[in-house]
Amino acid sequence: MLPDSLLHLIELLARLPGVGEKTAQRFALHLVAERSGTAQALGESLRELGARVKSCARCGNIAEVEPTGKAICVVCRDGRRDASLLCIVAKVQDLLAIERSGAMRGRYFVLGRLLSPLDGIGPDQLPLEHLLQRLSEDSVREVILATPPSVDGEATALLLARELTTRGVAVSRIASGVPHGGDLEFADQITLGRAIEGRRSLDSR
Amino acid sequence: MLPDSLLHLIELLARLPGVGEKTAQRFALHLVAERSGTAQALGESLRELGARVKSCARCGNIAEVEPTGKAICVVCRDGRRDASLLCIVAKVQDLLAIERSGAMRGRYFVLGRLLSPLDGIGPDQLPLEHLLQRLSEDSVREVILATPPSVDGEATALLLARELTTRGVAVSRIASGVPHGGDLEFADQITLGRAIEGRRSLDSR
Repeated sequence: MLPDSLLHLIELLARLPGVGEKTAQRFALHLVAERSGTAQALGESLRELGARVKSCARCGNIAEVEPTGKAICVVCRDGRRDASLLCIVAKVQDLLAIERSGAMRGRYFVLGRLLSPLDGIGPDQLPLEHLLQRLSEDSVREVILATPPSVDGEATALLLARELTTRGVAVSRIASGVPHGGDLEFADQITLGRAIEGRRSLDSR
Repeated sequence: MLPDSLLHLIELLARLPGVGEKTAQRFALHLVAERSGTAQALGESLRELGARVKSCARCGNIAEVEPTGKAICVVCRDGRRDASLLCIVAKVQDLLAIERSGAMRGRYFVLGRLLSPLDGIGPDQLPLEHLLQRLSEDSVREVILATPPSVDGEATALLLARELTTRGVAVSRIASGVPHGGDLEFADQITLGRAIEGRRSLDSR
């Protein structure tokens, strides 16, 4: 019933994360009916995307493409950052969230994926070689594992800790517990368990 | 922190229905990191969209653009359809759903919107003039109001019924009740009320 060109568009839109065929169809029909030229503007913007923005060659963060074709992000270009401190995150969104907190004075490494045996992602699919290369290039002394406190995130952190501690790098894991402003009453058991295990001494002597 | 070209893309993606800024950012970051060329292909497809697909000039359904620049959909071009029977729907998705049911042998008219006082959509924002023009052009004798059985859909159906019955057109409303395969136990009160009000006689005498 729908024209081929529209079916092709729907198929492409369904490749977006979390978008199924129904949602993709809704997007496509909206773009056809809408009259302020969003489809055209979006098309231009997407066509130019690859030429303007890339993953940073050093850390995987979003970076603007320079005239030379290289892409190094603002964090990696910032000379005031402590290059010997490296924070490993699963995805760019997590890097952006940590940057907003202002708590990180080192640099980053974006894994892009987590271990996930059910999805067929094993240790070989993690960018370990690139990470080790980065460690030696930057003479990294401390690594903070900031993968999420989920099953996959914990498994990945364990694997990385095992790989990195044998190489004389101090490895730490971000704290997990009841979030700031959170209510203990509504926290789940695992979160509460972690909050208690990870308790910090307030003894000031 | 993000490059301007990426912020622009995020802003455009956030215009899609049901997509907020967070989701738009997720889409954009996915498209940057992804390497199979989806961004480029999607860009091409969207740029060409306006030249290939448009709303049907007669009914508002999706239609391929002809070399002449006109766009008439397959339903409106199908001479075997009963032009004197017109089914009025809120959106193209509803038209597609009714077509899949195979129960409609007439043609359609897509309103594109429903009465919604809270969103500032009053009778003046409905394409009434276009609808009346269509009625006289096609000598329509029967209209089926297939707007959804929601508050806005019912209000729109009432308004259209009032406008159309004075013009000597038979007007009917699609039935509302317990869906096929549905469980009475879990049906809401309004649906059950409608199912009982709209009961049909099985008396075969």
